[in-house]
Amino acid sequence: MLTGPFLDRNWMGQNEDYDSSDIIMLGMPFDGTVSYRSGSRFAPEQIRLASWGLEEYSPKFDKQLEDVNFHDAGDLEFPLGNTYKSLDLIQKNVEEIYKDGKRVFGIGGEHLVTLPEIQAVSKFYDNLAIVHFDAHTDLREEYLGEEMSHSAVIRHCSKIVGPENIKQIGIRSGMKEEWEFMKKHNTLISEYSGLDCLKDKKIFVTVDLDCLDPSVMPGTGTPESGGMQFNELVGWFEYLKNFDIIGVDVVELAPDYDASGVSTAVATKVIRELLMVM
Amino acid sequence: MLTGPFLDRNWMGQNEDYDSSDIIMLGMPFDGTVSYRSGSRFAPEQIRLASWGLEEYSPKFDKQLEDVNFHDAGDLEFPLGNTYKSLDLIQKNVEEIYKDGKRVFGIGGEHLVTLPEIQAVSKFYDNLAIVHFDAHTDLREEYLGEEMSHSAVIRHCSKIVGPENIKQIGIRSGMKEEWEFMKKHNTLISEYSGLDCLKDKKIFVTVDLDCLDPSVMPGTGTPESGGMQFNELVGWFEYLKNFDIIGVDVVELAPDYDASGVSTAVATKVIRELLMVM
Amino acid sequence: MLTGPFLDRNWMGQNEDYDSSDIIMLGMPFDGTVSYRSGSRFAPEQIRLASWGLEEYSPKFDKQLEDVNFHDAGDLEFPLGNTYKSLDLIQKNVEEIYKDGKRVFGIGGEHLVTLPEIQAVSKFYDNLAIVHFDAHTDLREEYLGEEMSHSAVIRHCSKIVGPENIKQIGIRSGMKEEWEFMKKHNTLISEYSGLDCLKDKKIFVTVDLDCLDPSVMPGTGTPESGGMQFNELVGWFEYLKNFDIIGVDVVELAPDYDASGVSTAVATKVIRELLMVM
Amino acid sequence: MLTGPFLDRNWMGQNEDYDSSDIIMLGMPFDGTVSYRSGSRFAPEQIRLASWGLEEYSPKFDKQLEDVNFHDAGDLEFPLGNTYKSLDLIQKNVEEIYKDGKRVFGIGGEHLVTLPEIQAVSKFYDNLAIVHFDAHTDLREEYLGEEMSHSAVIRHCSKIVGPENIKQIGIRSGMKEEWEFMKKHNTLISEYSGLDCLKDKKIFVTVDLDCLDPSVMPGTGTPESGGMQFNELVGWFEYLKNFDIIGVDVVELAPDYDASGVSTAVATKVIRELLMVM
Amino acid sequence: MLTGPFLDRNWMGQNEDYDSSDIIMLGMPFDGTVSYRSGSRFAPEQIRLASWGLEEYSPKFDKQLEDVNFHDAGDLEFPLGNTYKSLDLIQKNVEEIYKDGKRVFGIGGEHLVTLPEIQAVSKFYDNLAIVHFDAHTDLREEYLGEEMSHSAVIRHCSKIVGPENIKQIGIRSGMKEEWEFMKKHNTLISEYSGLDCLKDKKIFVTVDLDCLDPSVMPGTGTPESGGMQFNELVGWFEYLKNFDIIGVDVVELAPDYDASGVSTAVATKVIRELLMVM
Amino acid sequence: MLTGPFLDRNWMGQNEDYDSSDIIMLGMPFDGTVSYRSGSRFAPEQIRLASWGLEEYSPKFDKQLEDVNFHDAGDLEFPLGNTYKSLDLIQKNVEEIYKDGKRVFGIGGEHLVTLPEIQAVSKFYDNLAIVHFDAHTDLREEYLGEEMSHSAVIRHCSKIVGPENIKQIGIRSGMKEEWEFMKKHNTLISEYSGLDCLKDKKIFVTVDLDCLDPSVMPGTGTPESGGMQFNELVGWFEYLKNFDIIGVDVVELAPDYDASGVSTAVATKVIRELLMVM
Repeated sequence: MLTGPFLDRNWMGQNEDYDSSDIIMLGMPFDGTVSYRSGSRFAPEQIRLASWGLEEYSPKFDKQLEDVNFHDAGDLEFPLGNTYKSLDLIQKNVEEIYKDGKRVFGIGGEHLVTLPEIQAVSKFYDNLAIVHFDAHTDLREEYLGEEMSHSAVIRHCSKIVGPENIKQIGIRSGMKEEWEFMKKHNTLISEYSGLDCLKDKKIFVTVDLDCLDPSVMPGTGTPESGGMQFNELVGWFEYLKNFDIIGVDVVELAPDYDASGVSTAVATKVIRELLMVM
Repeated sequence: MLTGPFLDRNWMGQNEDYDSSDIIMLGMPFDGTVSYRSGSRFAPEQIRLASWGLEEYSPKFDKQLEDVNFHDAGDLEFPLGNTYKSLDLIQKNVEEIYKDGKRVFGIGGEHLVTLPEIQAVSKFYDNLAIVHFDAHTDLREEYLGEEMSHSAVIRHCSKIVGPENIKQIGIRSGMKEEWEFMKKHNTLISEYSGLDCLKDKKIFVTVDLDCLDPSVMPGTGTPESGGMQFNELVGWFEYLKNFDIIGVDVVELAPDYDASGVSTAVATKVIRELLMVM
Repeated sequence: MLTGPFLDRNWMGQNEDYDSSDIIMLGMPFDGTVSYRSGSRFAPEQIRLASWGLEEYSPKFDKQLEDVNFHDAGDLEFPLGNTYKSLDLIQKNVEEIYKDGKRVFGIGGEHLVTLPEIQAVSKFYDNLAIVHFDAHTDLREEYLGEEMSHSAVIRHCSKIVGPENIKQIGIRSGMKEEWEFMKKHNTLISEYSGLDCLKDKKIFVTVDLDCLDPSVMPGTGTPESGGMQFNELVGWFEYLKNFDIIGVDVVELAPDYDASGVSTAVATKVIRELLMVM
Repeated sequence: MLTGPFLDRNWMGQNEDYDSSDIIMLGMPFDGTVSYRSGSRFAPEQIRLASWGLEEYSPKFDKQLEDVNFHDAGDLEFPLGNTYKSLDLIQKNVEEIYKDGKRVFGIGGEHLVTLPEIQAVSKFYDNLAIVHFDAHTDLREEYLGEEMSHSAVIRHCSKIVGPENIKQIGIRSGMKEEWEFMKKHNTLISEYSGLDCLKDKKIFVTVDLDCLDPSVMPGTGTPESGGMQFNELVGWFEYLKNFDIIGVDVVELAPDYDASGVSTAVATKVIRELLMVM
Repeated sequence: MLTGPFLDRNWMGQNEDYDSSDIIMLGMPFDGTVSYRSGSRFAPEQIRLASWGLEEYSPKFDKQLEDVNFHDAGDLEFPLGNTYKSLDLIQKNVEEIYKDGKRVFGIGGEHLVTLPEIQAVSKFYDNLAIVHFDAHTDLREEYLGEEMSHSAVIRHCSKIVGPENIKQIGIRSGMKEEWEFMKKHNTLISEYSGLDCLKDKKIFVTVDLDCLDPSVMPGTGTPESGGMQFNELVGWFEYLKNFDIIGVDVVELAPDYDASGVSTAVATKVIRELLMVM
Repeated sequence: MLTGPFLDRNWMGQNEDYDSSDIIMLGMPFDGTVSYRSGSRFAPEQIRLASWGLEEYSPKFDKQLEDVNFHDAGDLEFPLGNTYKSLDLIQKNVEEIYKDGKRVFGIGGEHLVTLPEIQAVSKFYDNLAIVHFDAHTDLREEYLGEEMSHSAVIRHCSKIVGPENIKQIGIRSGMKEEWEFMKKHNTLISEYSGLDCLKDKKIFVTVDLDCLDPSVMPGTGTPESGGMQFNELVGWFEYLKNFDIIGVDVVELAPDYDASGVSTAVATKVIRELLMVM
């Protein structure tokens, strides 16, 4: 028999055992509704590979990955081309995670994956709120006649958790109507204190990596100028440390547009820092 | 007969009719005097294509492209290799725009295209001033014995409008002599209030995209470290909203050096924001 | 009024007038069913731009573009995300072309665009045959439960023209079942004489650019090793010169995967040579 | 518990069970002695990912992956920086494979990994021969004073199997001394029949991917002009079908130099075709 | 005889004569211990080429290169693969520079080159201090069992100059143990005044270019998110102007990962600004 | 004093001494008349760097670089922007080479550099002939009104040596008029024997690297599909071994379009093989 040793091909520093883990990292390589540059379905595996180039220690949080009890469950396999069945699969698996008393750390894939995650989580918590990092509002009712679109994901989520329980950070692009929705419901915030009203909520944090400036994160589907620097994003994470985070996802890395490998490295470090916060 | 519908291959949201438009977008695919990395003549058409990936709504200015009455006139065709005839063509066409009571929005091409634009505009206004965004002074008297060079364009313009009517922003590279010119005439400014002396002037805004940091805009002929972030540039535009802008150009995108497509996306958004300001 | 001159942004050497043209070049920027690397909807406009870097004279055919009477009608505008409506639009417009006594030169987009073209053409000719250049069989009945897939396009076409009227060239990838279909119907040929049985047919030539080797054409959705060199492809065109070609399309260029610009240049020259043959 | 389904992250079409498999695919992500462009240690995992973009059916060999009984054992984990210990690990694990009555399919990593494979295999077979595809002779006694170098790997192997049992194909670069070694021992062949003398030997096939032309395979450490096309390489494989192959490796893909992804796709198809031959 | 004129292929604006120069620029193309992405040995020559695209005048320091008396001595030739002999060569040559009463300006190569520089300089000065710009602590005792590693370089230097004489800027990645070393010895600083305790020391400034953010400097071996902007780095240089700098190096540019050329341009300007400060 | 050793930054294997050398390699970094993609002025220095990655031994010619007595004289410095003075400089220096009884090996730059080389050589030999490898005819009388263009270089040369003394290989693009010139003067050849009529001539070999297929050589100004493979070009060189070659140049590498480095590697090997033939 082979004696190895063999490389662990999962996320660096994971707990190999599902049962004894608190956090379940779940790859969701789905990019079926992408309208511009696609390929985010290649992200989970590239991020996994890049994780081995990171240090396990986070100076920002003075904590190591071994202090976080997470398990990398691998990537869901979707019926390519069938959006509804794919979303169902996500919802069903995420429900299992919460049934087992654990929390999800989703790795997209495109942003639409957040909807079935929220649908699943909302079955377990009724005081749910969403903290949404993004360049785009994602507040359309539909996109080109199609309701199930990544451009509509937060709008759909708002119907589950209520618009008053959504806070949006980094948004800089959208339609006039979406902007009016944001104004009406006061969802867009630019200071840490804007989060304080969610203090006693269960928080789901969803990070669309295009909240970062395209100079920092060129490898994404719809890069939008004028975004955050990496340290600004992590600053928000630090503030979120004191909130009750019950789920997280990181979405929209498009490795095909990341010739230098820098976008994938950024995505991986975003994930490490978020793990420290959970 | 074909019934289509067909894609509009002009700038998104344009007015198809020249006569009823206030602003005329004019492509000037000229890069004949470029000294380092060339290809800015490919910029107008790539920008046009990329415009379809932008939202029509600008949150910064709470305005939509349909609120701006502009017409995309297409790209001038130049006699390749003949700098003087090319500049004449620009001047002649820009004069027509002002004869017709409209304003130009030039899309370069290299920075030398600004000279014939200013020559044209100066025939219609005698209280002209130039607001110049750039990494480079562009204040040489000549470059390698050649007077008609992109490195000399603002110097030549200064002879038309007077150096006291030139304000430069973002400059971080030049010869010692050029820097002394800037000091002598107090052209370099770093705060919004430096523009206030131009309050009752007719302003021509010329944006060399290399004023942005190379991390934000790698796809340009002579990238120069230490530049502005996108939001800083748009901050200046916001201040300029209250000035009397009678013409604009955006120059020096070099698409061949923009493998990720991010530079073209930035250029396109710069143009959208400037349209909002005019 | 602007006096220009302005660049013609259509395909180099076109006849500006639809009515007096024999061949209608029609852009079909549709890539809705792509399974691997997408972006072929950006191809028609990038090919148009690249056409200006080509010579108008083809030494191979000792003929100039001015000897070919073709009109560039622009690109259809599709309802993004709706495959069936998009295919309908193609079919309807191509029917118009044949009603007007002309022939189509389609520019994809993905390979599925060939199906509505054949549907349209088949209404005007009953002795239709298809010459199919490709790396892939495209003979599936469906792909992941979806009948309307680029992987099934030739299978669907075979139901219209009959499998005996399909000849395939360059195929080197497919499922076992597809290969058996090819054997049963003797569709795969490797010598010019394999075409001779189509001598008195009306021929539609469909060129999936991935028939070329990935070294020649990296910028395509599903590059497949072991393909043709450019001159081999043109050799087939030369043989086809003596056939009665009533329509053509060239599909599957993916400009996002063409950093060096070489794939787009190849696609453009393939089109020029095919124009010479029609 | 998670119900999935989950993506199989191993090579497409593998047998999940080691014990019942005939062929063991073993990743060897070692590139410690690379002299020019490095990064072949990233190859096994990128190849694994790319395998999912391939068809399971090989038209060339009219065979499917399910007809080949192979198991993907994953990647060995090496003590980074320690060449001797790394080579020992390879040798030990490959010995296990042969003890278990199976054959190895090694995925490099750099070419030096072939030496411990041959050392292991030679313990089980005394009539061993090597068929070596490469651009480079790899026949140095040492490289810059270091005996354990990828430039010396075949020379070292020749001491195990005897130079008369080595046949080299595709070689086009080396030192004069190496060329003289090839002439003296008649190792370089250019026609299929040059292999016939190995008919009753146990054959180990080692494929350095730079045997292919750099146009076909840019993503390798030391690209060397004037190489084989993909079909020429597979032509050799077809001839080898009738030989007694007891082991194979494929080495020297450097994914960092493969911006278009085409080199990885070629490597993956080379492996599929070799699996068909074993 | 050839009359030229010929291009000077050395650093722009150098003094051709070693003897009359104050500062000796010495290329050290060594990258033997690199663990992730290699190729920094190509940096000195690419930087030299890129220097000709820079202006000789620095507006920041109001000084020209002709005001700095430096000589470009070329690149040392190392015995490839032999780390210890390579380090000896560096030490020996740098000692010569100080024997001749001059100061070194080293151009890496990887960061390990700093160790022999410090060893050489420490023979001439006993009140030596190091100002270390980097993303990584470089404070390991060893890396994978190897003492001579770029990850250990500052730890080794600390044994020569004492940890109290090391100040580190920009550090954002390391192991927990390294972070504790930094805390214990108070080496990490984030404000200019943190340097003041070194006022009467002889300062060696070592700049690992990955201290800059990956958006600014993608072309480096181990890019680490969350770094400095270019102007922040130069701000530190400005403060250092008033210190007694007796040596400098700039290391870890990896040109193979700099497709746009922007990283090399940044490295070159970093060097120009540092020359102004010496 | 520095004891080094220092890297030789000239072409690998050169004779350091001009006087005792037979062949003078002269860099001509001029690209002033380029119409499409520029940057060939960066080629000589990048080729020089890449030469160190080549073996000194050529198996094709069973010869080493040390058997060729050549000196790398460096690169001429041109007055940027002044075509006529630049060409004069080339002519003057090449004349010196022939006055000294040596032969030139020119490294472009663009193809126009061949004209002053031929002008110089023609002063020393009256039975001169040109063997011209290229994708393009280069036989225009002028280009856009400019006589001194790379598109006209062979036409101008034909006036010096007579069109009957020009043989063209690999040509596949040009205007109809140029093709008629080729036919009239029978300059285009496709078989080795087409060269035989030049047996007692003094041959100048000019290699525009775009004679190679764009898959082999993407990094050139005007890539043209359907070109030679590397081995075909070297096959011609082998036939030329028996001719009396009195000068050579290799032109039109554009390193900015060579992201993978493969084009530069090809150019360098073309030069090595040509050195073997002289």
